[in-house]
Amino acid sequence: MSKLVASVREAIERTGLKDGMTISFHHHMRNGDYVLNMVLAEAAAMGIKDLTVNASSIFDIHEPLIEHIRNKVVTGIECNYMGGRVGKAISEGILEKPVIFRTHGGRAGDMENGSSKIDIAFLAAPCADPMGNCSGKYGPSACGSLGYAFSDAMHAAKTVVITDNLVPYPLKDTSIDEGYVDYVVQVPQIGDPAKIVSGTTKITRDPVGLRIASLAAQVVKHSGYLKEGFSFQTGAGGASLAVAKYVEEMMKKDGIKGSFCMGGITGYMVDMADKGFFETILDVQCFDLKAIESIRENPKHQEISAMRYASPAAKSAAVDSLDVVILGATQVDVDFNVNVHTDSNGYIMGGSGGHSDTAAGSKLAIIVAPLIRARLPLIVDQVLCKSTPGETVDVVVTQRGIAVNPRQKELKEKLVKAGLPVLEIQELKQIAEEISGVPRSVEMGDKVVAKVLYRDGTLLDEIKNVKTV
Amino acid sequence: MSKLVASVREAIERTGLKDGMTISFHHHMRNGDYVLNMVLAEAAAMGIKDLTVNASSIFDIHEPLIEHIRNKVVTGIECNYMGGRVGKAISEGILEKPVIFRTHGGRAGDMENGSSKIDIAFLAAPCADPMGNCSGKYGPSACGSLGYAFSDAMHAAKTVVITDNLVPYPLKDTSIDEGYVDYVVQVPQIGDPAKIVSGTTKITRDPVGLRIASLAAQVVKHSGYLKEGFSFQTGAGGASLAVAKYVEEMMKKDGIKGSFCMGGITGYMVDMADKGFFETILDVQCFDLKAIESIRENPKHQEISAMRYASPAAKSAAVDSLDVVILGATQVDVDFNVNVHTDSNGYIMGGSGGHSDTAAGSKLAIIVAPLIRARLPLIVDQVLCKSTPGETVDVVVTQRGIAVNPRQKELKEKLVKAGLPVLEIQELKQIAEEISGVPRSVEMGDKVVAKVLYRDGTLLDEIKNVKTV
Repeated sequence: MSKLVASVREAIERTGLKDGMTISFHHHMRNGDYVLNMVLAEAAAMGIKDLTVNASSIFDIHEPLIEHIRNKVVTGIECNYMGGRVGKAISEGILEKPVIFRTHGGRAGDMENGSSKIDIAFLAAPCADPMGNCSGKYGPSACGSLGYAFSDAMHAAKTVVITDNLVPYPLKDTSIDEGYVDYVVQVPQIGDPAKIVSGTTKITRDPVGLRIASLAAQVVKHSGYLKEGFSFQTGAGGASLAVAKYVEEMMKKDGIKGSFCMGGITGYMVDMADKGFFETILDVQCFDLKAIESIRENPKHQEISAMRYASPAAKSAAVDSLDVVILGATQVDVDFNVNVHTDSNGYIMGGSGGHSDTAAGSKLAIIVAPLIRARLPLIVDQVLCKSTPGETVDVVVTQRGIAVNPRQKELKEKLVKAGLPVLEIQELKQIAEEISGVPRSVEMGDKVVAKVLYRDGTLLDEIKNVKTV
Repeated sequence: MSKLVASVREAIERTGLKDGMTISFHHHMRNGDYVLNMVLAEAAAMGIKDLTVNASSIFDIHEPLIEHIRNKVVTGIECNYMGGRVGKAISEGILEKPVIFRTHGGRAGDMENGSSKIDIAFLAAPCADPMGNCSGKYGPSACGSLGYAFSDAMHAAKTVVITDNLVPYPLKDTSIDEGYVDYVVQVPQIGDPAKIVSGTTKITRDPVGLRIASLAAQVVKHSGYLKEGFSFQTGAGGASLAVAKYVEEMMKKDGIKGSFCMGGITGYMVDMADKGFFETILDVQCFDLKAIESIRENPKHQEISAMRYASPAAKSAAVDSLDVVILGATQVDVDFNVNVHTDSNGYIMGGSGGHSDTAAGSKLAIIVAPLIRARLPLIVDQVLCKSTPGETVDVVVTQRGIAVNPRQKELKEKLVKAGLPVLEIQELKQIAEEISGVPRSVEMGDKVVAKVLYRDGTLLDEIKNVKTV
C-alpha cells in the first residue's frame, strides 16, 4: 500500500475534485510558494470551475489567481492575509462574491467547529514519506513549522501532500501524520527557497523606528509585565525586532528570565531563547533561515499548530497565556480600532493573520507605528476596516507619543508616572494633522468586496470596493 | 486564566459528572496506576452511580473496580485488555451488562468515528503545566509515551489532566496540548513508579522458549521480508525478545538495515535501533525504564498516538506498513483463530490490545507459543474466544513444529524448502494431545459477560460466564 500518485493531475482526479468545491492551502512557503499556482493551473486545465480557495495567506506570487478569477475557475476566496497584488484586483471588484477574511486562530477554529468545510486540502510539504507523514523541517524547500497546515489536514475530507523531497517510510520527525493524508505527489519543486524566507531579518536603523521601539519597550517595562516568566510575541519587521532588542537589554539588566516567545519566529527570537531569555519558543511559522535551522535542531523550539496558537474553538490556546504582543497597523482610529487589511486608500494589502488573536489573548497589546506614513496620519476618526476591535488594543505607540486605551486606567497612570510621553489619542491625531494636513476622506464604492470575520466567526466589518477613475 | 482546580473532587464537580456517564482512562501507568482508582473512589464518595468506565486496559491494581461494580457505581466496562483479577470477577458474572472489548486501534477509531462517546477523560500525566499541556516523558512517575491517551483527550467532551509533577507554563516538550484540556489537578502521586514499568525485560533462558524463538526467527528469514527496510514489532515477553535477538543476529550477519520497529517498546528494541538495525522507533507505549529514557532523549524514538499506530478510522496507520509482527496466544484453533482474551478454562485474563490490529496490518503475523501449557494443548478445535481472526494469522510456531495458514501457500513452500519443521496445524494438535491427553471440553455458562469487537467495530465474538461450583 502506498499513497503515491504520479502527478498533481492524478491526485486531483483521485480526490474527485468537482465544480463548486472548496480547496485549501497553507502559506509557510510564503512568497516562494509554487503549490497553490500549480494546483489551480491543473484544475483550470481540467476545466474545473467555481472553486473556492481557502488559503491561510495569499502572497504576490499567487497573482495567477487573478486570471483564474476572470475565467471563473475560482469564484470564492477565503484567507487570513492577502498581499497587495491580488488585493488590488479584489479591491477593484474582480470577484463577484466577497472575500472571507479570517484570523489565524479563527480559520483553524472554524474548521474545528465545522463552520468552514474543506473538500480537499493541498499541503506543500518540504519532506514527506509515501504514506503522507510530512514535515516542514527538512529538504531543499524547508520552511520550518507547518503550524497553519494542521487544521487543513485534520479537517479536510481529502488531503493531498505535495512534496519535492520524498523520503523512505517512516519519516523520522513527523509533524502531520499519515492518518490524515490520502495522496502523496512528488514534484520537482514546491517553492523557491530564496523567497520562502527573507534570509535574514534585520533591526531597523531608521531613527523614527528606533524611537518608536524604544518607547514601546518602555511601555512593556512600566506595564509591570516584564518580570520572571514574561511571555512575548513580536513581528518580523525592523521596528518590531528593535522592540525585542530593547526588551532584551532590559531583561538582561534586571536578570529576568521569560517563559516563552511565540508567533512567526525570527532568528532574533531564536537568539534570545538561546541566550536564556526565554525557556521555550512556540513556533507556528518560521520567518527566516535561522528559525528553520533552530526548529530542526533545538529542543527548546517547538512547532505548534494554529489551533494551539490561537484557536477560539480550543479549550485554550497559547495566546491566552501571552503577556505582551507588539503589533503593527496601517490605521488606528480614536476608538483604538486597528486596520491591517487595507492601506489608507482602501486597497486590500494585508489581513489579520494573528493580529486580533494575539490582541484578544494577550494581557498587553501594543500597536507600534509611525504617526505619519506617506504623508497620511496614522490616526483617523474611523478606520477604513476594523481588523482588530479597539477594546482589545491597549496602547498605541508613535514617535511623537503614546496613547493608552481609556479602558486601561491603571496602565495609563503607571506610564504617566514613569514619565513617558502619554497623550490622548485625539491629541496624537491632531499633531499628525498639523504636520500632514487633514487627509481627504476616502470614498469607497458600494460593492462589498470582502467580509472580515472576527476570530469567533462573527462579522466584524466589510470592505467596499475602491472607486477607480 | 488557569485550569488548575484544588482536588479530584473539584475537577469531577466542574466537569458535571452525572449518573450514567462514560469516563475514560489510559493505561500507560500499567499496574502502578493510581488514577483510575482515585477517580472512582471520589465518584463513589460523591454518590455517583451507573458509570461506564472506558479504560484502554485494566490491570490487577484496578481490583477496587469489583467493589464499585457491586455498589452500582460502575455498571459498564469497555477496555482493550483486562488482567486476571477483575477478569475473574467479570467471568463469574458480576457485571450485568457485557464488557465491551476493543482493540488498541479500534478504541481510537471508534472515538474518531463517533461510535464510542466519552463524557469525561481522566488523563494520568507524569508532567503537566497549569493549562493542561502534558507529557509522559518527565517526572517521578514518567511512563514515556502517552500514545493511548491522545484519542481520549481529543474526543472526550471534557478532559481532566491529573499530575504529580506540575511545571510552569508552557511545558517544553508537549505530547497532548492544552487545546484539549479543561481542568488540571495536582495530586501527590499518580502511580507507583516501581510498577509502572517492569524495570528490565529479559530474554528467556527457558530452552523451550528459545527453541520457539529460534524457529520463529527462521520463519522471518525465509519469508523474504527480512531485507533492507524491514519493519518489525514484537512484545515484551521473554520469548518475543528472544525472537528479536535472533532476528538481530541475522540482520547483522547479512548487513540488513531495518526501517522501523514499533509497538510497546522495550530496552531491547531501543538497543537494536541504537546499534543501527532500525532507523526509527514508533512508540505507543513504553514497557521499561530504558524505553522511557530513550523516548525522552533520542530523536530516533518517536511517540505515536493509538490513531497513528493502528486506527482503522485513520487514512492509514503504521500497522499498515508493518512487515512482521510476533504475537502470543493462549489458544489457537485449527482455523488459525487466536484467543488472547481468556485462559483455557474460559476466565478472562487478557485482551486484544494491538494483537488483531497488527495481525491485520502486517504482511506476516507469527504466533509464538509453547505447544502445551499447564498440561493443556495450545491448539484446539475451536478457541474459547476469537480474539484475532484466523484469516489474519499467517504462521503458528511451537517448539514441536510450525503450522502455516493454508491461505499462505507460497510462504509454506518457502519454509518447507528451507528445511523448517512445517506441519499441518491438525498434526500439531495431535502431537500435543498425544502428550497431554485430549482436554475435557470446557462448558461455559449462558450469560454473555463480554462482547469482543473487531477493530472495525463489528462483533467478533462473545465471552460467556464461567460456571462456578
